[in-house]
Amino acid sequence: MTASLAPGADAAGRALAEELFAALRRAGDDGVGITRDSYGAGESEALDILDAAAREHGLDTTRDAGANLVVTLPGSDPSIPAIACGSHLDSVPQGGNFDGAAGVIAGLLALVRLRVEGLVPRRSIRLYGLRGEESAAFGRAYMGSSALFGRLSHTDLALPRAVTGRSLRDCMAGVGADVERIGRGEVLLDPASIAAWLELHIEQGPVMVARGLPVSVVTGIRGNVRHRTVTCLGEAGHSGAVPRWLRHDAVFAAVELLHRLDGHWQALLGQGHDLVVTTGVLGTDPAEHAIARIPGLLRFSFEARSQSQSTLDAFHDLFEEECRRIEEERGVRFEAERRLDTAPAVMDPDWVERLRGIVRRLGLPDEPMASGAGHDAAVFSNAGVPSVMLFVRNENGSHNPREAMEMEDFMVGTEVLRLALIEGAA
Amino acid sequence: MTASLAPGADAAGRALAEELFAALRRAGDDGVGITRDSYGAGESEALDILDAAAREHGLDTTRDAGANLVVTLPGSDPSIPAIACGSHLDSVPQGGNFDGAAGVIAGLLALVRLRVEGLVPRRSIRLYGLRGEESAAFGRAYMGSSALFGRLSHTDLALPRAVTGRSLRDCMAGVGADVERIGRGEVLLDPASIAAWLELHIEQGPVMVARGLPVSVVTGIRGNVRHRTVTCLGEAGHSGAVPRWLRHDAVFAAVELLHRLDGHWQALLGQGHDLVVTTGVLGTDPAEHAIARIPGLLRFSFEARSQSQSTLDAFHDLFEEECRRIEEERGVRFEAERRLDTAPAVMDPDWVERLRGIVRRLGLPDEPMASGAGHDAAVFSNAGVPSVMLFVRNENGSHNPREAMEMEDFMVGTEVLRLALIEGAA
Repeated sequence: MTASLAPGADAAGRALAEELFAALRRAGDDGVGITRDSYGAGESEALDILDAAAREHGLDTTRDAGANLVVTLPGSDPSIPAIACGSHLDSVPQGGNFDGAAGVIAGLLALVRLRVEGLVPRRSIRLYGLRGEESAAFGRAYMGSSALFGRLSHTDLALPRAVTGRSLRDCMAGVGADVERIGRGEVLLDPASIAAWLELHIEQGPVMVARGLPVSVVTGIRGNVRHRTVTCLGEAGHSGAVPRWLRHDAVFAAVELLHRLDGHWQALLGQGHDLVVTTGVLGTDPAEHAIARIPGLLRFSFEARSQSQSTLDAFHDLFEEECRRIEEERGVRFEAERRLDTAPAVMDPDWVERLRGIVRRLGLPDEPMASGAGHDAAVFSNAGVPSVMLFVRNENGSHNPREAMEMEDFMVGTEVLRLALIEGAA
Repeated sequence: MTASLAPGADAAGRALAEELFAALRRAGDDGVGITRDSYGAGESEALDILDAAAREHGLDTTRDAGANLVVTLPGSDPSIPAIACGSHLDSVPQGGNFDGAAGVIAGLLALVRLRVEGLVPRRSIRLYGLRGEESAAFGRAYMGSSALFGRLSHTDLALPRAVTGRSLRDCMAGVGADVERIGRGEVLLDPASIAAWLELHIEQGPVMVARGLPVSVVTGIRGNVRHRTVTCLGEAGHSGAVPRWLRHDAVFAAVELLHRLDGHWQALLGQGHDLVVTTGVLGTDPAEHAIARIPGLLRFSFEARSQSQSTLDAFHDLFEEECRRIEEERGVRFEAERRLDTAPAVMDPDWVERLRGIVRRLGLPDEPMASGAGHDAAVFSNAGVPSVMLFVRNENGSHNPREAMEMEDFMVGTEVLRLALIEGAA
């Protein structure tokens, strides 16, 4: 379905949104796509554009100790925790215009309209234009939100920027962040001072286009378990001269493993578990492989993602069991590099219900979903801030110039966010 | 079992064999293994060693138009076709001492003993020390036997030698071959002038060690059907953000294909078919693969080998059927490079029975087998010469310095060959 609000409901908001997206596009255009380099000039220019627009519409702005943009609509009771919303303003190199920026512009539209309509909520509402969410520059993601909660270490700050090699510390200091406090792991934003974190973001997968959903409430952010490399060790030999019963073929052994994991995955989905499984990298050894040689070695990556840690653990158990079984049956050995874990982040159930209620009241299909990609919302959630996300339909994935969010869908998402902020701040 | 002949049955033969293997080893030692370069100095030196030994034992020797060594024991009736035996005297670089040479030395031992014992067969018996069997130097195998039957083309003769780049034509001419006649495709050896080709060779796989067989009669030489590269084309995407039902994962699709082919292979073996299946090369694309990226492309090689062309055709049909089924189910595409065929070579059934009878009369286990590797015997067979091969047990495969044939087994093989020559030449 194509969503549309009542005609004229927020024509001014839409005009402002189009103006801001156009300004960001002009500023970030790199000839191929959009580049707003994390803790660099491109990102700073994006913050400046949003900052200026907020002030122009009578909102207070400031930069916090992490050099993020903070726009505030003061509430009637400044003594109680505020509601926070927003997203990030950096981008990958040659990325798209909507990834991150859509959430900041949506928040600004909500605040501007509240202010224009003279509605004063009980709680203050703060909009964050975060820096440094993308990992492309420093190999570390969620730097802006992590800095706020004392989760950036000196090791992180020593990370060199891709291409230039300049340290994260220098880049953060260069845009005005207080790297001394950040390096000490000081908590710059007390989680208890924030009643909730609401983040609107484009979907980075194809589900909503396929399911016809303009917006979708996010129930959780998938964590993952990985082995960067698993090696299957068999025995090389002449492909003509060794019969099946004497073979220890690393490819057929690994193929059986992966096919069985594919089957387990399907079964777990059938049982209602959230799970995606990927072997993105796989290959025989170019130094010794040949068409007429039984492969003695195959390397592959293992990744499972789920909103549920117990599903991840269960699937990893299946992986290990199948390795042992196939080792036994085929006389091969599987050697996995150490297990790497990223914990799932659960969205706040009350906020999920509140957003789903708003979606239904607007007459929209209510199909919540998991986020497969990571977001700043996971950092807020894991810091103890009740958090929720709203996805807006978007074609062609993200991290590429072909991102395609329709303005109609964006305005629907903005409306859901606005109503949620009003409810939450009341 | 360990085979042994009656004590003292051929002590002189064994001593000669050990002397010749030692002489070849000294001549071919490259510091790592054995190198007797095809149509090069190393191979020529090996021919000279055998040539000198044959003459020393009163046998006539000559070089044919292909520069191969020919040793003859004249029969009583020179007007009827001769019996031929032998094998090749070249080796791969850093190879072993037995691959090829064992068959020539075995033939020489048989001829020497016949001469010593004064036995004059009706048919002449000819021993060939062939050149250029290995493909390592020019990428073309069976050059020595192919030249005899007019099966080397000008295109073949233009092939450059690895490392030096010198043409096969120049290298053949350099050792005395008549490259003009060879290049014209002239038949240098009339197949009708040869009643049979008998080739003793070490096994290049592990079957005889595993089965406890000192010797084994070869029933056929496997042909093969190949696709050098099959590409599975799916759709790349974010490994977290695309659920299973929207994926077109090239790895999981190809994994299903290969696992099903592995199952078909097992089923065909159960039905008594001769078949080996290998995917020796397989990999995602290093230019675009990543742990967190759904693989959009996987390339792999396909090879099936069998003594039976109909088994090869049936298995290739299964391959194509499974490709179509998985394309349908998973929304991927398989694109195979053109099919390459090498026809199987059937060994002469009468000769196979004759050799098996001799093996049984010697009290040895009679378990015939297929040759997975190619041999000059396939060229003789496909030229119309009734051909048969005898394998001698050998550990650690071939084309490496760790080849390990026991002299006891070699002498058993030599005895089978000698008795077969006597029967065939009578």
